[in-house]
Amino acid sequence: MRPVYAVGIGITKFGELWERSLRELITEAGLAAVADAGIAGEDIESMYVASQSAGRLLGQEQLGVLALDEAGLADTHIPATRVEAGDASGAAALRTAYLSVASGAHAISVAGGVEKMTDVLEDEVATAFTSNSDMEWEGFFGATLPALFAMMARAHGSEFGTTREQLSAVTAKNHGHGARNPGAAYRFPIAAAKVAQSPIVADPLRVLDCAAAVDGAAAVVLANDEVAARLDGPKVRIASTAQGSDTLALHERESLTRLESTTIAASAAFERAGISADEVQVAEVHDVFTIAEILALEALTLFKPGEAAGATEKGLTTYEGKVVVNPSGGLKARGHALGATGLAQACEIVEQLRNAAGDRQVDNAATGLTHAMAGTGGTSIVHVFRAEGGGR
Amino acid sequence: MRPVYAVGIGITKFGELWERSLRELITEAGLAAVADAGIAGEDIESMYVASQSAGRLLGQEQLGVLALDEAGLADTHIPATRVEAGDASGAAALRTAYLSVASGAHAISVAGGVEKMTDVLEDEVATAFTSNSDMEWEGFFGATLPALFAMMARAHGSEFGTTREQLSAVTAKNHGHGARNPGAAYRFPIAAAKVAQSPIVADPLRVLDCAAAVDGAAAVVLANDEVAARLDGPKVRIASTAQGSDTLALHERESLTRLESTTIAASAAFERAGISADEVQVAEVHDVFTIAEILALEALTLFKPGEAAGATEKGLTTYEGKVVVNPSGGLKARGHALGATGLAQACEIVEQLRNAAGDRQVDNAATGLTHAMAGTGGTSIVHVFRAEGGGR
Repeated sequence: MRPVYAVGIGITKFGELWERSLRELITEAGLAAVADAGIAGEDIESMYVASQSAGRLLGQEQLGVLALDEAGLADTHIPATRVEAGDASGAAALRTAYLSVASGAHAISVAGGVEKMTDVLEDEVATAFTSNSDMEWEGFFGATLPALFAMMARAHGSEFGTTREQLSAVTAKNHGHGARNPGAAYRFPIAAAKVAQSPIVADPLRVLDCAAAVDGAAAVVLANDEVAARLDGPKVRIASTAQGSDTLALHERESLTRLESTTIAASAAFERAGISADEVQVAEVHDVFTIAEILALEALTLFKPGEAAGATEKGLTTYEGKVVVNPSGGLKARGHALGATGLAQACEIVEQLRNAAGDRQVDNAATGLTHAMAGTGGTSIVHVFRAEGGGR
Repeated sequence: MRPVYAVGIGITKFGELWERSLRELITEAGLAAVADAGIAGEDIESMYVASQSAGRLLGQEQLGVLALDEAGLADTHIPATRVEAGDASGAAALRTAYLSVASGAHAISVAGGVEKMTDVLEDEVATAFTSNSDMEWEGFFGATLPALFAMMARAHGSEFGTTREQLSAVTAKNHGHGARNPGAAYRFPIAAAKVAQSPIVADPLRVLDCAAAVDGAAAVVLANDEVAARLDGPKVRIASTAQGSDTLALHERESLTRLESTTIAASAAFERAGISADEVQVAEVHDVFTIAEILALEALTLFKPGEAAGATEKGLTTYEGKVVVNPSGGLKARGHALGATGLAQACEIVEQLRNAAGDRQVDNAATGLTHAMAGTGGTSIVHVFRAEGGGR
């Protein structure tokens, strides 16, 4: 397979963008990524677009072509396809674009993701989230996503003694990071003590344990080694992609505290990239709930089972710690625009490895990863990124 | 890129299958394809699943993992991703699986497609179809898919003198073929004269000019050359894949009678396969309306512009003609199960090239193609298949 580089990134502000349509958002992100790459739109050879719920919420399918058309590139007639893997859809689009370039089929491919979650059918938004779980065995019986993650949080507490304060530390850390991110939907700090005072959603999870659904779009331009060498600007290599699956329904799994799909994906991603987990300096992980970040950090083998919560409380997942987790603010503070989220994660890591993340810059960042997940972990997708000549 | 073979096929009966769920359908097709290939489920390295509207009609996303899970393969933890390109979704899944094998990322991949269109929210089914068009510029103003194709039919009549009888000949031919297909939803002949007597849908298109939405699933197992050589059974090579796009909305195109996305895809597919259009002996094309088959045959360059309608009337698109088009009965007689259709087409061509199509067998078939399309042609996907050692 050919080496693949992330040569351009583009991202919109995330948030309740009532005055902006899905079309405007994906176009803004896509054109920004193309401009950032320093290529012409006509150079693109394929496009992969992620959206989790435009079919349900907006009545629009064939989103690949929609994005191509809105970008003014319909007359290039290039392949444009939508990819869906629940709220890991953005990462699935990145992975599919990666494989299309690695295969030699395309020299330049764009992966874009977009979601319009506000100013749409209100009662459908919760269903859109829950549709990432097993609707026949979970959703239709009222087991919403917060309820499912609450069970995982209880099991983790029971097995490892994870505390309320440790969960709150995830929120406080991610909002601390997000406060430095101009594009974040919720750009303000939240003190850990406030989390325990926020209303209960599904015990033990409270409002401030949950990421909120927002509008937003993000895009990455991928190119093979030959094209990347020709372009100016910093080179960030996508060193590997890996995807793992698990049962859709939580009750069918052996353990509520292990994300097998993430462990499988991480192990494969590290092996393909030729790195160990210890080399990861910066990571964007799927903190759709506070407990999800804890579970992810353990499944990614960045921390041992039962140790991520304590490590978070001790500051090991922020600046000056062991690995900076969610410098963008994560799903919690940047906001979770389902189909866009996996690509927003990639944009953040690329920016970090370019040493261009401003107030959020992780010192000497040369190796980073993104971790996207769908539902309670039916799908996990891990990408490893390295600055050219990277390694600590 | 590595050579890719279709080593197993599986397809359910198409039709109004009220007693069968989406889960049952995709599992039946997938397991049949795996059994046909003579591999174990554990040999599969990735899965791509197509469904156009399960999110809207059934409230279920993350369909890749759903299919994996239902097949009893969740503990393999392999990547499973949904691919969507309107009613060309099945072909998009086949193409994505093809690229994943051609890239060397996976030795064996399964592409599956499924749609559950009956026994769901009735008023949503028409919207599901229309969501393949440009909803903001077409659908919301009442321009349904039949209305859009009716305009194309009128334009074709005006430009080339295409007649009512010629359109009717498409229906008569496809139902003649479908009557020999045990899996077809509408397994009976329809005389050409009956078509003009059926109720008007959107002038000049009548009920019997339209394909009906049905339930069904289909799957294809793809393998690289090394695996294919190891397996028993007839070898059908997927000689090429190509995908073209166009504006989503019809009014933005230069011509209503040319399917640019199809022409682009066909030209690339023929070049990559190293064949000319004249070598195609059997083709499954997207006859969602009678006029769509005419437009497709011309865009595929199987016939010159303005000549496909007359050729159909003269019998050149059936047995003993120039090229056998839609031996399965096509979308019209087999039925159109949106996400499954592109894979049902592939199953038919593979069966033909295996010389195993029974009553529908095209003599000495060695080169075939599939043509899938979304909406009015925003997406077109062409695959060329060749029997090993193929060519007339």
